Parts: sequence; structure tokens; C-alpha cells
Amino acid sequence: MTVDYDSKEYLDLLDKYWRAANYLSVGQLYLRDNPLPKRPLKSDDVKVKPIGHWGTIVSQTFIYAQLNRAIKKYDLNMFYIEGSGHGGQVMVSNSYLDGSYSEIYPNISQDEEGMKKLFKQFSFPGGVASHAAPETPGSIHEGGELGYSLSHGTGAILDNPDVIAAVEIGDGESETGPLAASWFSDKFINPITDGAVLPIINMNGFKISNPTILSRMSDEELTDYFKGMGWEAHFVEATADTDHAKVEAEFAKTLDTVIEKIKAIQKNARENETPENVKLPVWPMIIFRSPKGWTGPKKDLDGNPIEGSFRAHQVPIPVDANDMEHADELVDWLKSYKPEELFDENGTLKPEIREFAPKGEQRMSVNPITNGGIKPEPLKFPNIRDFEVKFDKRGTEQRQDMVEWSKWLDAVAKLNPTSFRGFGPDESKSNRLYSLLDDGKRQWMEDIHEPYDENMANAGRVIDSQLSEHQAEGWLEGYVLTGRHGFFATYESFGRVVDSMLTQHFKWLRKAKEQSWRKEYPSLNFVDTSTVFQQDHNGYTHQDPGMLTHLAEKKPEFIREYLPADANELLAVGDSAFRTYEKINLIVTSKHPRRQWYSMDEAQNLVKNGLGYIDWASTDQGEEPDVVFAAAGSEPNLEALAAISILNKEFPEMKIRFINVVDILRLNSPKKDPRGISDEEFDNLFTTDKPVIFAWHGFEDMIKDIFFDRHNHNLYVHGYRENGDITTPFDMRVLNELDRFHLAADAVAHIPSYAVKGSYFIQRMNNTIDKHNAYIREVGTDLPEVTQWFWTPLNK
Amino acid sequence: MTVDYDSKEYLDLLDKYWRAANYLSVGQLYLRDNPLPKRPLKSDDVKVKPIGHWGTIVSQTFIYAQLNRAIKKYDLNMFYIEGSGHGGQVMVSNSYLDGSYSEIYPNISQDEEGMKKLFKQFSFPGGVASHAAPETPGSIHEGGELGYSLSHGTGAILDNPDVIAAVEIGDGESETGPLAASWFSDKFINPITDGAVLPIINMNGFKISNPTILSRMSDEELTDYFKGMGWEAHFVEATADTDHAKVEAEFAKTLDTVIEKIKAIQKNARENETPENVKLPVWPMIIFRSPKGWTGPKKDLDGNPIEGSFRAHQVPIPVDANDMEHADELVDWLKSYKPEELFDENGTLKPEIREFAPKGEQRMSVNPITNGGIKPEPLKFPNIRDFEVKFDKRGTEQRQDMVEWSKWLDAVAKLNPTSFRGFGPDESKSNRLYSLLDDGKRQWMEDIHEPYDENMANAGRVIDSQLSEHQAEGWLEGYVLTGRHGFFATYESFGRVVDSMLTQHFKWLRKAKEQSWRKEYPSLNFVDTSTVFQQDHNGYTHQDPGMLTHLAEKKPEFIREYLPADANELLAVGDSAFRTYEKINLIVTSKHPRRQWYSMDEAQNLVKNGLGYIDWASTDQGEEPDVVFAAAGSEPNLEALAAISILNKEFPEMKIRFINVVDILRLNSPKKDPRGISDEEFDNLFTTDKPVIFAWHGFEDMIKDIFFDRHNHNLYVHGYRENGDITTPFDMRVLNELDRFHLAADAVAHIPSYAVKGSYFIQRMNNTIDKHNAYIREVGTDLPEVTQWFWTPLNK
Ligand SMILES: Cc1ncc(C[n+]2csc(CCOP(=O)(O)OP(=O)(O)O)c2C)c(N)n1
Ligand SMILES: Cc1ncc(C[n+]2csc(CCOP(=O)(O)OP(=O)(O)O)c2C)c(N)n1
Ligand SMILES: [Mg+2]
Ligand SMILES: [Mg+2]
Repeated sequence: MTVDYDSKEYLDLLDKYWRAANYLSVGQLYLRDNPLPKRPLKSDDVKVKPIGHWGTIVSQTFIYAQLNRAIKKYDLNMFYIEGSGHGGQVMVSNSYLDGSYSEIYPNISQDEEGMKKLFKQFSFPGGVASHAAPETPGSIHEGGELGYSLSHGTGAILDNPDVIAAVEIGDGESETGPLAASWFSDKFINPITDGAVLPIINMNGFKISNPTILSRMSDEELTDYFKGMGWEAHFVEATADTDHAKVEAEFAKTLDTVIEKIKAIQKNARENETPENVKLPVWPMIIFRSPKGWTGPKKDLDGNPIEGSFRAHQVPIPVDANDMEHADELVDWLKSYKPEELFDENGTLKPEIREFAPKGEQRMSVNPITNGGIKPEPLKFPNIRDFEVKFDKRGTEQRQDMVEWSKWLDAVAKLNPTSFRGFGPDESKSNRLYSLLDDGKRQWMEDIHEPYDENMANAGRVIDSQLSEHQAEGWLEGYVLTGRHGFFATYESFGRVVDSMLTQHFKWLRKAKEQSWRKEYPSLNFVDTSTVFQQDHNGYTHQDPGMLTHLAEKKPEFIREYLPADANELLAVGDSAFRTYEKINLIVTSKHPRRQWYSMDEAQNLVKNGLGYIDWASTDQGEEPDVVFAAAGSEPNLEALAAISILNKEFPEMKIRFINVVDILRLNSPKKDPRGISDEEFDNLFTTDKPVIFAWHGFEDMIKDIFFDRHNHNLYVHGYRENGDITTPFDMRVLNELDRFHLAADAVAHIPSYAVKGSYFIQRMNNTIDKHNAYIREVGTDLPEVTQWFWTPLNK
Repeated sequence: MTVDYDSKEYLDLLDKYWRAANYLSVGQLYLRDNPLPKRPLKSDDVKVKPIGHWGTIVSQTFIYAQLNRAIKKYDLNMFYIEGSGHGGQVMVSNSYLDGSYSEIYPNISQDEEGMKKLFKQFSFPGGVASHAAPETPGSIHEGGELGYSLSHGTGAILDNPDVIAAVEIGDGESETGPLAASWFSDKFINPITDGAVLPIINMNGFKISNPTILSRMSDEELTDYFKGMGWEAHFVEATADTDHAKVEAEFAKTLDTVIEKIKAIQKNARENETPENVKLPVWPMIIFRSPKGWTGPKKDLDGNPIEGSFRAHQVPIPVDANDMEHADELVDWLKSYKPEELFDENGTLKPEIREFAPKGEQRMSVNPITNGGIKPEPLKFPNIRDFEVKFDKRGTEQRQDMVEWSKWLDAVAKLNPTSFRGFGPDESKSNRLYSLLDDGKRQWMEDIHEPYDENMANAGRVIDSQLSEHQAEGWLEGYVLTGRHGFFATYESFGRVVDSMLTQHFKWLRKAKEQSWRKEYPSLNFVDTSTVFQQDHNGYTHQDPGMLTHLAEKKPEFIREYLPADANELLAVGDSAFRTYEKINLIVTSKHPRRQWYSMDEAQNLVKNGLGYIDWASTDQGEEPDVVFAAAGSEPNLEALAAISILNKEFPEMKIRFINVVDILRLNSPKKDPRGISDEEFDNLFTTDKPVIFAWHGFEDMIKDIFFDRHNHNLYVHGYRENGDITTPFDMRVLNELDRFHLAADAVAHIPSYAVKGSYFIQRMNNTIDKHNAYIREVGTDLPEVTQWFWTPLNK
């Protein structure tokens, strides 16, 4: 039997499906019992405090129903991103209608009792969120913090050539920076190797309490705006008075056009072109003008319009258990959807309406891409040993950690040609990802003009040709939330442009973890390089290591923070961190030539344990140390070792212990972090009372917070003290007292037995610092004794 | 004498001026001596490590010279914003040429010696930044973190009707979210009461190592893109081969057209319309296509193009003191500007070229708007007493702090009708700024459709009709950096969208403070409301108090963090904080109905001292306390007081001390923060060893860090533990153990003398929490004993 998807009958079914979704959405907002009102509504039937959003709902349920139709008509692999995620009912209602909700949450059954529970739990303590949250079937995007819907959609369809991401975007959301920049996503989508995004602007005219900018633009202006960026805008409009059948037919026709265009672009590209030479197409998109709060209450108690106004944004009319005066209005509103035509006596959706939804995994609510991805695979790894940096003497030869690492990243990309990607904001080359760029290339669909351009290709493993941290992060999130692997490498300071995006991603991971039906996500790897302690072409604006504290404030189960000290540690970190799931892995690493310290064996052990006692840099074997040095990070490690070397020459009898910390959060107290080392282990390493000189890459509060929960409070942290400038690499350390001279002096100052004999040494350290200051101001580079310093074995 | 600004002669002067700026810019990059090469260049003449950027320079100096011409031709009040701020030489060279540099920095004289110093200091330790930094005359925008140039320019010209902000925008910068969203600034500029922005895209085709998206778009696409957003794009193009005279004349003509259009828009509006009914005009803008690294080296050593390629971004050819092999190329390059035509024997700019620059304050480098503002005035204040919330009994009546405060804000706006503004991302109404909105109105130039819209006007004191934290923050920064006053009110969690912008603003303040010639800036007031401890319509995504830690990591001289506990405290905070200069004031406040605690007298004292012992909530008068409660923030204050009340009923003999902290950073150790209270005062308040139960609004690490530097480590912080959900207001506190029951139980658990007798009480508290959990899951609202609780005087 063939179905005529364009028939009046079929569109009538669409109308019913839409009404059913609307009915359920209003019910979720207000009701806790009597879900179909079979008996007169009484106070006990209504929530005590209805909470949630209304204005965005009906335009979205309309779009959703239309997409359902298109999925069936064109046999699509499509999923839904709810940009205006505060309309949480939309996806819940639709999942309930297509049956998936009850499959996932069997207590929410397909009958009156189930509907009652569905209503009550919404936006209710112990129930479900008011947003398209992790507990919402079919969602990979919560839409709490607005702006990332299109980036997420784009990230999801990269390397998923069969998938279309239907991305609903609020007209308010369209005004945010991240969303405005994300229209340029089209420049990066390869129509052969990637899927498609279909942006649908839910142009309901309003946001919380304002009209929207885009909605007051004319169709002509909108057409221009999008055309300029490479999109072809298709318009559909409904007003409060528009006949529903009319707009249903119009939208269906427009959607058909748009889907056919997408298919034609892909077909043409896939049949006639190669991934390497395919042209940038003009992708279609939809602008759907409709009244905010469509089909809802018309006027508020003061006679002001609700439908078609900002007043529709949240709960439009004041009805609650303690205020039933206007309960009739609520009942009329519910009845306007004619539930009796939609649900049977038992409260079950009528079978012919149920038929309207796609089946099985074609339901957007259970499209596998939205739950761990389409055939997700673990990342394949090369043998890390093949990348080891070998050296004869420790701390002598110099290498660039990122250059070494990029060889490994390149090998990973080759082993996982369709499931591993790197992202960045125009910094991959500056960040020394040379090998990966040479082989993996940067994906970009606009024209390529060699030799003016370099490392660009229509299909590539890196996307870094848009200067936008929001896009890089958003794409990567979309990519890992759909089961693939990747990293975002950024200048440390500007990683903070996306502070709040990382917060939101963490929150998603955390809540997703509570859903037993949710599959695991590969970790999101965030690589901070061009770090605070070496700035070359830039200066004070480029100095901010605060991402460490920012992420450390989250639930530690989901956060890892690695500070590899050299290339082998970085390689070992990658080999370990990239295997994990459900984490945000922050990797803070140097890109500059640096002495190499640890063999691969040592590095792997340090990464495994998170930190370790370094015997070759310690002189306290078998004895109590006079002082404990700890270092986390590349420059902290270098400076601490140089300080130890100075001290050892000056005071060969001094008992020094050196601890290298790679995985800083292992220092957390186990009271707070299950991975934290025990107090006993901590005390063994750091002692309970000896001075600890902690050379640290970040802001100092983070280390003090960590030590607060431990016994030893005899702590002297040398981290970033927000002193910076355009200056020499070593001077950045001097300015913040992280340099070897300050570290050595501080150690002597805090060992009681050196109180008297140490003062001359401290004076000498200060003199050296003065000499440094004069020298760099005259010559512009660091003292030769600093730049040419290398490690020599300690006197023990 | 009338000058013919369009004559060949005059444009020839422009050419010379431009070449002089180019010459100086290359010199700054490479040289430390022999600035005009009078003798063959030797190693000592060249920097050891030339550092800085080249690619952006020449197109910018070209634009700058053109703007100089237009200023004189049209007698303009114009200043320059350097979006691509990494071209730091541009503004330095121009300031040097127009004489202002030597006026401000007399050691950099207008002769060979001065030029030598100018060159040497650039991007050099102890010298000046490589960016358009605070030490750069004429700059209000450093352009280190890209994306905010147009927002800053717009903020600056609000209420400055005579000023034009010429905003140079990188084509790379145009790809960032903040910049892409900032094109919508046009929708908010009133052509009568505000000035104008003139965006000039420096379309040099490349960013760090990539081509730019916009530059590969056709003129037609660009025209559409900007037309859609309400801008009229005017194009000028130069290639490497274009005759300079030709493009000089073309640009001049285009700029004339554009300036005349701006003037015509303003004239027409100002003569024929009123601020309230003026129409949204179409503003002109310029797109200047030119080769990146224009006029510079053509090829690198491998024969790859530099000019017109990404390779021009930083230092284009490798010449330095230790590598003089290609010194000839550098010399040829320098000589290509024909310095002998520009500077006399002494190295002084020839007088006729000097003449080209505008005079006095018309020089963009010393336009007063760029140094403290045009006639800056202190904010005028109403009498705070007129806004006092009066009550008979403490902690009984409920008020909404933000509602009360908005009355005061409204009064401030009326007293300062052209120098005070509020900004926000569509949240001002949600944040309860009712009075300010009713009277002050929201400024917005698109059509207004009442009654669907509310509180909108073409001229208004609030701008919150773009859903963009970046814009709200950027506009406010531009506004205060030009000497006016204002605030940004935001949902606490989404304030973090602009974390990095606050960092950059702080960095600007800090470095500006080191310049004695820089005037003071009014503080930037950042108001976090809709806070973590009460979420209604939203949930876990809307919960993040981390701005407190984020700002506390900065230099404390520039940061204030206020957590008013009620309306009078909020009023007193506003009355105090809004008077300050050079600070970022973070104000964290509740918008929900809350008990009122402090009289205006008390509130003012608490704000003045930052914190205080609250006698009416303490029972330890004249005795050692058993336990110290401290609270910072609205809900912490409420819950701590409720806990004290419970404890006092249960254990009337317990000696409790209560401290209310409003200005949290006063707890900092004076070692770190000059405003920190002394150890003695701290010990007096908090004791050295009694248990301190600290009820805190933010993440707990911040308080532990503060206490780490103090004697008393017997601390139990109850802050946000990153537990959240869509739930009841009180449950948010329970989830994080900030509620009265957890607080009271924790106090008893840590007073040694209650070790035995306290256990029954602790059990009861736990039972109450269980009861709460069950109740909210059933009813959906908080226990009546919680919602209806009010304060009753303690038994002493
Ligand atoms: C980054 C960010 N800023 C502010 C908010 C607060 N907020 C929630 S909904 C909303 C309005 C959204 O308007 P629109 O995108 O048009 O959605 P719709 O009209 O469909 O509700 C705002 C400003 C937010 N969620 N995220
Ligand atoms: C937010 C941000 N991300 C990344 C960078 C690093 N960065 C510095 S310059 C630059 C390229 C700028 O290109 P464009 O705006 O075209 O300026 P041009 O030098 O070409 O004039 C980048 C990505 C930055 N400064 N800010
Ligand atoms: Mg909207
Ligand atoms: Mg550029």
C-alpha cells in the first residue's frame, strides 16, 4: 500500500499528531491529575506551581510533525536539535507519542495513568527537566545556554553522510554571538563525506520580554542575510488567524522542496565529484514565521495579547492549585486540541494517529545518533613506543612537545579516518600540529589558492579555518556526543572564551550518566597550548591559565587535568586520556623547544599514577627531606629542576625531594574526589610538615584549596600571579616568581635549619634576578646562563 | 587658505604620511639602532628577537591616513578602534607622526634619537606591548582577544552624538561569534542622541595561517550579508600591483561618500525628526580588500609568497642580530618607503608631511574620548534613604531586592540622563528591573508594535533587546571606557559566557593604571541575579556561581565582590560601588521575594566595613563563642539565620556568633590584598580555632583559599557543590547542604562539647531533610515550615 503523503487525509493526520503533541505539552505544564479532563478540573488536578515555557512549543511541535512526515516520505535518517531547549515538552511529547518514551521509561505507559505521570513529572522535583535535557529521548542538546544548536548539529553530521540534522533555532538564539557565527558552518560541510544540516528558524517574533531582531527584518533582508552566507532561505508563515490546513500544506511543500534540494546536492556531488574537488553548494534552510504562543491563550487578565507576544514565553495564564479562578480558560485551551479525537477512552493515542510517526530507529527520539552514535567504535591507537623521544642525557636535548605529539595525532587520524578530528580557531599551525596538518589537511569548502594557502583540502581531518572558539568547541561537542573522537587545541588564554560551553558540556555528561539507557560518550579533549609562561608575539592579553581552576570546580568524576612536563609525558597522556569516556580532559602543554626529562617508561608510570617521586632529581633517599619540591606543568618542572640543581650545588647536604605531578586532580582529597590519593599516600609524599615548594602552572588558589584538605599546610605555591607583559619567556616566570631563583630562595627561606646560613644565598638569588632584569631590558633575550642551562646529575 | 583635499598634491601628502607610518612600523619590528639606516645595517642595529605582527599593518596605516584626511576635510570628531590590535605599531606610529607620542612620552623625541628609542622599545622587555594596549595613545581597545571591536565602538558613541568611531575589523575577527553578532548594533543606535560607528573591514584575506571566510565571499555575497543586517557596504580594492595613487584616490572618494552619508543621516534625523520617532537608517560601512602584508617582502626563502598570503601574519623575513644573512632584504624593504623623502637629516618628520595630520584634540591619538571621555562627570546620586525598605520586625516581611533596587536605578537614570545606562541580554524584565524599564525604556530602532511589545522606545536608558551577553558586556565596556557609568544585569550562570571579556577588561584597567597620563574610568558594574540558589523556570544548566572565583583570581586591587543579603544591603552596595572608579564590581543578588534583615544604617555600615558582627543574631556577647556562623549572600544569610534560630531554640546555652559578609574580598589576607582585614581583626571575628560554619553562595574552593592564609582552619564551608536540578528553591539549598538543617547539624557536629548530646539533634535534622524530600516530590513546593518561617528574636 502506497501512502499519499501529500493528500489532504495525510495532512489531516499530521494535524492530529500535532494537536496531540500540543495537548500533551499544555498538560505537562499545568496538570498533575485528570489528564484528559474527564471530570471537571479541580485544584488537586493542577500543579501547585506550574513551571516551564509555553511560547516556543507549538511552532516546534508543528515542525516536528512535519519532519516526521518527511522522514517517512523520503525515508530519511534525521534527528532533531532543539535550539530553544526550554521548550522541553516538545521532545518529551513527541517521544511519548511515538512510543519510545514508554519503551525507555516503562512506568510512563501509553494510557491515562501514564499520561498522568507524564504530566506530573514534568518540571517537577524528582521529575524531568523543563529543557531538552539528557533524560529526554532523542536529545543531544539541552538548549539551556542558547547559541550552540547549529554548531552541535554540524558537529554531529560530520563523517555521517547519511544523516540530516534538523536544527530548530530560536529567533532570539539567532542574536547570540555563537549562533551568528555558526552560519559559516556551511563552509566546512563536505556534501560527499559529511551529512547535512537543515536549519529551521523558529521565527516566533519574540524572546523573553523583547521582540527579536530577525523577526522585524523583512523577508528580503533575511533572504539577503542568509544568501550572503551561502544559504538559501525558504519562508513559511502562519499568523494567529491562518487556517491550519493551509499552513500545514504550505510547510509540507516547502519542506519537500528543501529535502529534495539537499538530496540533489548530495546525489550530484556523490555521483559526479570526488571528496577532494567537490564544490561548495548552496544549502537550503527554512524560516518559519508563526506567533509566539500559537494556539494558546489570547489575552492576559489585563487584556494584553499573549499569543503573538513576548507574554507567551513562560506560563501564559495563572492557573494553579491555589488559584483556580481561571481554570475554565485552561480547560477550554486543552479542549481546543480536541483530545477526544486523539486519545481513546483509556488515554491511548488512537492507532491511526500513532501510525503517523516513523517506525523503529527512524523515530527521531531514538535515532541511534542521539544515543552514543551510529555504530560507535573505540578509537584505534598506534604503538606509543614508536613516537618516544629518546635521549642520552636527561634535560639536555630540546624538542617541541606539540611537534612530537602531532606525529602521533597524525597516526591516530590515519587509523581512524572517519571517526577522529581535530578542531581549532585558526591556531593549529601556530600550535605546531605540523604533521597532522601536512597529512590530515584542513577541511574547507571555499576556494583554495595555493601557494597562498597551505594544508587546505575539501576533505580533511582538521577543521580550524574559522576563527571561532565557539565553533571549534561546538563542533567537537557535536562530534563526541555522537560517538566519535577528537580534540580542540587552543591558545590557553582564549580557551576561556568557551568557559561556559565546557560547563554546559560537563553538566550534560553528568546528567546523562544518571540515565541508564544512555550509552557512553568519548571524552572531550581540550588542549591548552601557547601557555601563559611563554608568550612570544603577544603579551598580557594572552595570559590566562584559569581554565584549570574553572574545571576543577566541577564534579571531579568528569574532569581530568593533565600537565605533561615534556613530549613523552604528553604522548603518554594522549595515549591514556584519549581512551577514556565521559570526561573532559584538559591537557596543558608547551609548544616551544624544551628540555626532555622522562623516558616513555617513566612517563607512562607517571601518567598512570598521576604523580610520582623522581629519584634522579631527589637527594633524600631513605631519609627525611628538608624540603619537598613539586611541579606540575612544563615550565614549573623545568624551573623546579633548575632550582634543585642550584641548591644541590650550593648545599650538597640538603635533602631534597622532587615530585612530578601530571594529573593534578589526583591530589584532591578522596573525601571530594574518588580518584584522590589517600591521606596516607599524600603524607608519605609531601610529609605532614616539611616545606613544600609547589611550582604550578595555574592560579595559586587551586593548590591552596587542595592542600586545605590535607595535613601539610606548610605550603608555598608559585603559580601565575597575574603578572604579565610582552617579555622574554624566562621573565614571565620571574615576574610571577616561578623561576628557579625565586624557587631556590624560597626553599632556603623555609627550611628552619637554613634560617641563618641561607641568607647569603638568598641575597645571591636576588642579585641574579636583578642581573636578569637589567639584561633583558638591554638585550631583549634571556641570560645565556638561563637559555643554555641544562641538567647535570645531582651530587648525592 | 583653503586646502583642496581632493587634489593630487594632497593625496600625495597622504601617500607620504602613509609611507612614514609604514616605515616606522617596520622599524619597530626589527631595529634597535641606526633607525634611518644612515650607515650599513649591522648586527647591533637589529633586535635579537624581532617580535610582533606585520600582515595587518599597512592596510591599517592606509586606513588611518585616509581617516586623518577625512577628519580635516569634514572637521570630524573621530577616533580609531583597532580590531586587529596585534598590529600595535599602527597606532604607535601614527601617534608618533602626529606628535602626540612625544608629548605623552617626552623621551621618545621627534628626532633620530627618539626614533631609535621608539623602535627599540616596541615589543621589548620593559618596553611597549605589541598590541594597541593601554600605553598606546588613542586606544580604548587592545584587540588581544578578538571579537569586540564593533561592540566597543558602539558603546563609545552612545550618548556621544558628535563622535564617529572608525572601527577597523579584521576579516578573521569577523568570523568570531561576538563580532558576527555585533553587526546588529545598528539596530540600537539612535541617529539623533547617539553618534555613529563606521565599520571598516580590513579584508586582507588571511588570518594566522588560514584564508578568511569573508574574503573568499564575492562582493555580491558580502553586499547581501551586510544589506540583510542593515548596512550598506562600500568596496575598495587594492592588489599587490595596484598603483598606490589610484587606490589612494579611490579610497578617499569612498570614504567621502560614506562620511557624507553618515552626516546626511544625522542631519536629516536631527532636523526633521525627534529622538522618539526617528527611523532606523541604513548606515554605510567600508570593505577594504588589500593584500595581507601589503608593500612588504614578496617571497620567503623557499619561494613561497608572503605578501598576499597568511605568511605575512607575523615577522615575515628572518633577520635578527644573530642572523644577518638577509639583512639586505630588510634594508631594501625599509628603503622602499623612501625615508629620505619623509624625514629630515635629524630624523624629524618633514613639516609639510607633519601638516597632514589633524591638530590638537582632532588627532585620533588624543581624542579625549579615548582618554577618560569627553567631559566625563561623576555620577549623580539620589538620597539612598528615600529608597530604604522599612520594617517593624526583622526577617518577617518579604520584598524583592531587585524590584526595590530598580526604583533607585530609575532615579539614577533620571539624574544622569545622558551618562548612565543599563545593559542586558533580554533579561531586564525577568531580572525585575521594572521601574527602570517603565520609565527609562529600552532603546531599539526597529519597529515597535504595542501592545505586543512593552517598554520599548527609540531612545531609552536600557539596551537589552539583543540576546547577547557579548554585546551587553561589550557595549558597557565601550561606555565606561569613555567615561560614562552603567551596569550589566544578567542571569548569574550566563554571565560566564563573558568570563574572558571580564578578564580582558580587568587587564586593560590594570595596565592603564600604570600610565600616569591615563584618566580614571568609572567602574564596570556586573550584576548577577537569577542566581543558583533559586531557579524557577529553568534548571541545572542555569546554575553557576563561579564568576566569584573567576574574578577573585585577578589582582584584587581591581575587583570587588558584593553579596548583599537583602534590599537595603543591595541599595547600600549600589550607592557605594557605583561611586568607584577602576574596578569591576560584581554584585550577586536575589530577585525573588525574600525576608528583609538590615536597616539602612546597618546595611551602610556593613558595606563600609565589608562585614560585621551581627549582635541581634548572636548569643556570645562578651564571651567566647562555641561556634561562628558566617554568611555571604542572600540565601546563605537566610539559611544561616534560620539555622541559628533552630539551634538557639534547641540549645539556648549555646554561644553562637553570626557574621554577615557583604564584601567577600575583605576576608583576603592583606599579604595578597591591600584591603584585606588584618590577621588580628580576622582572628577577633572568626577566632583562631572555633568551628566556623560558612554559608556561601559560590564554589567552596574560594573560601578555603581565603582561610588557608589565616590562622583558623577549623572551617566548614557550605557552598554550591554543583548539585542541581529543576527543583524547589529550598531544595537547591538542601542538595548542596546549604540549608538550615544541614547548617545546624554541622555546627553541632563540630562543637566538641556537643559530641555526645548533639547526636539526637543531628538525627532530627536528617529526619527533617527526609521529610522535605518526600514532600517536594509529592507536592512540588517547599514545606510550609520552610516557606512560612520567619525570624523571631533569640533567647539570650
Ligand atoms: C546564553 C543565554 N542567555 C540568556 C538566556 C535566557 N533565555 C532563556 S529563553 C530566552 C529567549 C529565547 O528566545 P528564542 O530563542 O526566540 O526562543 P523562543 O522564542 O522559541 O522561546 C532567553 C534570553 C539563555 N537561556 N541563554
Ligand atoms: C578570540 C581570539 N582567538 C584567537 C586569537 C589568536 N589570533 C591572533 S591574530 C589572529 C588572526 C586575526 O586575523 P584577522 O582578524 O584577519 O587580522 P589580520 O592580522 O589579518 O589583520 C588570531 C586567530 C585571538 N587573538 N583572539
Ligand atoms: Mg523566539
Ligand atoms: Mg585578516
